[in-house]
Amino acid sequence: MPFRHATLPNGLTVIGETSPTARSVALGFFVRTGARDETTPESGVSHFLEHMAFKGTPRRSAEQVNLDFDRIGSSPNAWTSEENTVYYAAVLPEYMPKVTDILADILRPSLRQADFDTEKKVILEEIRRYQDQPGSVAWDHARTIYYATHPLANSVLGTLASVEALTRDQMQAYFTRRYAANNIILSAAGNYDFDQLLGLATEACSGWNTDTVGRTNRTEWAGTGGLHVRTREKVQQEYVLCLAGGPPSISRMRYAADTLALALGDDTGSRLYWALIDPGFADSADCSYSENDGSGISGTSFTCEPEATDDNLEIVRKVLKEVQRDSITADELKLAKTKIASRVVRGGERPMGRMQGIASAWAYTGEYRDVDTELANYEAVTAADVRAYLDAYPIDRSTIIAFGPAKSVDGVAGTAG
Amino acid sequence: MPFRHATLPNGLTVIGETSPTARSVALGFFVRTGARDETTPESGVSHFLEHMAFKGTPRRSAEQVNLDFDRIGSSPNAWTSEENTVYYAAVLPEYMPKVTDILADILRPSLRQADFDTEKKVILEEIRRYQDQPGSVAWDHARTIYYATHPLANSVLGTLASVEALTRDQMQAYFTRRYAANNIILSAAGNYDFDQLLGLATEACSGWNTDTVGRTNRTEWAGTGGLHVRTREKVQQEYVLCLAGGPPSISRMRYAADTLALALGDDTGSRLYWALIDPGFADSADCSYSENDGSGISGTSFTCEPEATDDNLEIVRKVLKEVQRDSITADELKLAKTKIASRVVRGGERPMGRMQGIASAWAYTGEYRDVDTELANYEAVTAADVRAYLDAYPIDRSTIIAFGPAKSVDGVAGTAG
Repeated sequence: MPFRHATLPNGLTVIGETSPTARSVALGFFVRTGARDETTPESGVSHFLEHMAFKGTPRRSAEQVNLDFDRIGSSPNAWTSEENTVYYAAVLPEYMPKVTDILADILRPSLRQADFDTEKKVILEEIRRYQDQPGSVAWDHARTIYYATHPLANSVLGTLASVEALTRDQMQAYFTRRYAANNIILSAAGNYDFDQLLGLATEACSGWNTDTVGRTNRTEWAGTGGLHVRTREKVQQEYVLCLAGGPPSISRMRYAADTLALALGDDTGSRLYWALIDPGFADSADCSYSENDGSGISGTSFTCEPEATDDNLEIVRKVLKEVQRDSITADELKLAKTKIASRVVRGGERPMGRMQGIASAWAYTGEYRDVDTELANYEAVTAADVRAYLDAYPIDRSTIIAFGPAKSVDGVAGTAG
Repeated sequence: MPFRHATLPNGLTVIGETSPTARSVALGFFVRTGARDETTPESGVSHFLEHMAFKGTPRRSAEQVNLDFDRIGSSPNAWTSEENTVYYAAVLPEYMPKVTDILADILRPSLRQADFDTEKKVILEEIRRYQDQPGSVAWDHARTIYYATHPLANSVLGTLASVEALTRDQMQAYFTRRYAANNIILSAAGNYDFDQLLGLATEACSGWNTDTVGRTNRTEWAGTGGLHVRTREKVQQEYVLCLAGGPPSISRMRYAADTLALALGDDTGSRLYWALIDPGFADSADCSYSENDGSGISGTSFTCEPEATDDNLEIVRKVLKEVQRDSITADELKLAKTKIASRVVRGGERPMGRMQGIASAWAYTGEYRDVDTELANYEAVTAADVRAYLDAYPIDRSTIIAFGPAKSVDGVAGTAG
């Protein structure tokens, strides 16, 4: 796949993979900012700002933004995480100029006071509703406890109090600081002409400001340790998460970490599947590696009936200890690599998948990785690589968080969660 | 895209579209049977049988089925509807022979009594849990009322009573009758060799029986008419569905029906969006056309606070009446066609999408339609086509079903639902 990249004088990066056989094109602006880049009084501003991008610009009302997406057969799409805020769309090739224009326009929103006040109510309601998703709330609790004083502890949604107190001027200041051109990547994949895209981006984005961007705290983090029990009565299941350190996104160890996580926690045929799911002890079990900027994390989790928590936690601790001591078998490694190859290939079948894939790789490492390179990187993982990863990031050195109706877990009394 | 098709001596149809630039291959067995093909005492057997396919064959235990899918980086996938039961997988090209072997094998399940008894408990639990999904339950109620004595009224899950009473011998008889080779299509899309696939299918499926298959009742159906209110207290929202007749899948009018549905009920920029969502009257609004074998259906639906039901229903009735009288504008038609083009192209980007698309088209019409043909079919829809569709299937001649906490709707008292 041909790949091109360029940087505008103001620092905006444009990257793109073209695929002449594709029938559509996916485009996205990756703003390298998220909850971890917020100060405490700003908590929730990244996500709130993402909403505000759709509330109008000097050139378009909120209604016009929706209408314009609609007219090219697309919809307003965006997401905010701890590290990134992303605005994207996939369209037929003929609408590439139009979608570039709309997306670039909404990245300079008006942030009108009246819209800000109205949207704040929407966000507050979203935070309230979020409490009905115990799985997500459990993860939020877990991250907060694990990361403690590290900025990756920050909540994407923020709290009712922080969002309530947020002012339009704070959002404007955050916007100016974090939505600077040199903190943004425009990524494209599919059927389009890179030079044309570059021309459109130059036209639409050259007026964007440049600022001192980056992140202050990117240290690795091995967690708080210990067992933390948060009791919430109206939840049906107990959610248990065992978090351990992992390689940062820039590390080549990420491939070994990903592979081990799949061998350990895939939804069929994994260690945890045989230990917890096949015998019917737990309702779900999972292991995943999340690459973060500066500090990765390995999360082993399960859900079960509250009464079964202690027994299951004992099993999981035993599994983690065994894996830490003996690693995985050659067969497990082979099976995990087969599964990953299938996922990499299938994940790259659509321009949308590729657009996000190349942007994420570029944002974290400044590298372009095509599907073949990514396949080769996983294929190259050896038993020695997995061993080296475990030695560097012991998976049994966990910070454990239980969230749910259990009043105590393994003798530790719960506090209200 | 090269397309090939062949029929084995026992009647099994093999169809396939090959795409040399694809990096994976999707395969599926489409059994042309579902809830509508069940007798009353058999209610739920199609879906139950789908579960049993994964419980073992003469060559593989249930565990071995899972392990074998796992080893090729795939998972057991299947679904059952009113009209079809489908088993499918997507894998890297090198695993095409293996996945064909596994899928063909599970289509001849052992149906052991002990497995049947165990799985029955799983199904009964699924039926109980299903009651917690009010949106789906509302649709089931609506279909049952609309189709009355037509077999499309049949429930896919069946009832607790029908599944409880079902015997293994009934399932065996249904299997022999409906899983005959001449009622099954093997469909493939992506990167593979059709002759190789045909050889594998011949080897794996030639021993399958042939039977007298087909469907007895395929008459068109215009609905029961009237307003039916089903009151269920523990649901938060009111679900309202207005069902009207539509062209059967074999009709060319399906393109006009699909286009009108999008103009009327797409989630942004549609008639219902402007009438119900933009002013904040309802929480969701939708219009969809479902192609069925012999009798299509158009469903206009919305959800709202129970107190707002009467007002919203009045608005929707007015919208349907106006559309029936004046059809849609040239702008609305153009907008809907743009959106559909984007969906057709993006839906066809993965082998999985193409495999299901060509199988569905073939099962219903015996036609092969590539992406370009399908695009041209939608592009060709004119205002006159939409008018002709409305004249043939008046969209305001609805059977209306309300499901939710409202004690009465538009003066009609609810019965327990």
